[in-house]
Amino acid sequence: MRFATRANGTADGELILISHDGARCLPLGARWPNLLHAITDWDALLDDAAALSTTLEEGGGESLDHATLLAPLPRTWQWLDGSAFANHGVLMERAFNHPPIETDLPLMYQGMSHRFLAPREDVAFPTEADCIDFEGEFGIVTDDVPMGCSADKAMGHIRLILLINDWSLRAVAPKEMKTGFGWIQAKPACSAAPIAITPDELGDRWRDGRVCLPLRVEINGDWFGHPSGEAMEYGFHELIAHAARTRHLCAGTIIGSGTVSDVDFNRVGSTCISERRAIEMIAQGQPVTPFLRFGDRVRMCAGTDENIFGELHQTVAAYVNVGL
Amino acid sequence: MRFATRANGTADGELILISHDGARCLPLGARWPNLLHAITDWDALLDDAAALSTTLEEGGGESLDHATLLAPLPRTWQWLDGSAFANHGVLMERAFNHPPIETDLPLMYQGMSHRFLAPREDVAFPTEADCIDFEGEFGIVTDDVPMGCSADKAMGHIRLILLINDWSLRAVAPKEMKTGFGWIQAKPACSAAPIAITPDELGDRWRDGRVCLPLRVEINGDWFGHPSGEAMEYGFHELIAHAARTRHLCAGTIIGSGTVSDVDFNRVGSTCISERRAIEMIAQGQPVTPFLRFGDRVRMCAGTDENIFGELHQTVAAYVNVGL
Repeated sequence: MRFATRANGTADGELILISHDGARCLPLGARWPNLLHAITDWDALLDDAAALSTTLEEGGGESLDHATLLAPLPRTWQWLDGSAFANHGVLMERAFNHPPIETDLPLMYQGMSHRFLAPREDVAFPTEADCIDFEGEFGIVTDDVPMGCSADKAMGHIRLILLINDWSLRAVAPKEMKTGFGWIQAKPACSAAPIAITPDELGDRWRDGRVCLPLRVEINGDWFGHPSGEAMEYGFHELIAHAARTRHLCAGTIIGSGTVSDVDFNRVGSTCISERRAIEMIAQGQPVTPFLRFGDRVRMCAGTDENIFGELHQTVAAYVNVGL
Repeated sequence: MRFATRANGTADGELILISHDGARCLPLGARWPNLLHAITDWDALLDDAAALSTTLEEGGGESLDHATLLAPLPRTWQWLDGSAFANHGVLMERAFNHPPIETDLPLMYQGMSHRFLAPREDVAFPTEADCIDFEGEFGIVTDDVPMGCSADKAMGHIRLILLINDWSLRAVAPKEMKTGFGWIQAKPACSAAPIAITPDELGDRWRDGRVCLPLRVEINGDWFGHPSGEAMEYGFHELIAHAARTRHLCAGTIIGSGTVSDVDFNRVGSTCISERRAIEMIAQGQPVTPFLRFGDRVRMCAGTDENIFGELHQTVAAYVNVGL
């Protein structure tokens, strides 16, 4: 099933079910006002949604206005972002002549979760000098995961799959990374594509905890990349088990894949500017592609014959500090 | 004013106002069911609380059972933990022969915020081999802070002050820190002392965004340390401005000071085992104090003639993974 969140004046929005053609929708009703609540009792929600789904696929329901859609979880309690595409790490290390990160565990940081930007909302940053970049990622939403959950059991806690843009500020990121504390200023609010899907929607493109779809990025209407989510070094179930070793994960936890990346980058491109610049540095000695400017438009979607997650289509804007 | 959160079967608990002697309380009522909600409209809450406060100080209200108290915010949207005591960093670097962290900015990471443990709740960890430790810290709770907020303006967004134990797993922490991504497994849920106070409660012991009180730690009934929160290199208002440079901070954001530490450590002790072990390594060539064992009790409070934040008094326990 496919879900979205419609603006209704509340912080968490209104949970709606979406038809497979993305044209129609039905609210889940008073028992399931929003996704952050529904994810705490997901099996019961799915039971209630089954009848609505039949209505929708038979042509019932309301017509859907994509402009009213927020991120599926406009806010949540926990956002843990992995960096599970080894190729991305290798390229960054080669370009900057850094030693490989020494670890036998998945890479993961905790990021800002109190706001996920809406898929068509402008994204405001204080200055272009921070080197504004995007990161195209897949993500999953868990229900309650007990501490100590194994990777095998974790697979059953993956309730929804998302498409995420993890906005990143590249002039700040290396300085914060060098402290060992992870990122605060370099990782402002992320955005999420409007449609959250249950894993079965992917059919055989959901394999071993990986989203085997190309993630398509355009800047200002030009192709930027379309690598597949297939090449994750760790599957999402393994990322969950890593995160849950010493903590319980609350329902609504989002875990990200990190920048989708592929060894065949000359053909499929990248899902962040920083990686493309690294490839240019390795090949030509210096980066060519500029970071984003105010007014630039970034579009992301996934798949081939359909926009299964809907579209992220946002414009980068200057943040206006109104004397606060 | 002094606030606490009483268990009532909901995730956020019930907001109550506490008398200055800590013996009596009054619920804030249906308009302000819990602190996470109340902090979004704090000036209005304070207006409503004024009359209740008079009743309480005149001997009215209910008698308070401290055993029913949760953390003031049993969960919140954002927990940003600083490391603002330079002395702590210097000791750790000397003991482990590490170069100083190169940064001209405050140190800060984002940690788990979907659960703050109750002040008398057992704290369960999977294994003693992770080297279980505590960190005594002060923290503040903000209301909504706009992106770009200056340190001066940030002072007015400090609505409550907390006493926090940031539980830490020292066998894991250096490995995670080396990745540059910050901590996931090394930083499970924190605990918070029961009483959250408005800054004016501290009088002249609230100076330049610093809590000028000793933070007292005991292990199994024995003194461990009582350094003052005075020596922060950055005040809380400066930590807020740092965090808010590229993001808005939502109401309910908690910012931590990091382990309270003092250059006069031979007299005042430490607020974490790791620092005491570093001092032992520098003085004697090797650490002597062991990390915590299951069954050990950790007590924290602050101040001299009163327990202004109430007490954290918790027992370390073995986590039982029930086949999940």
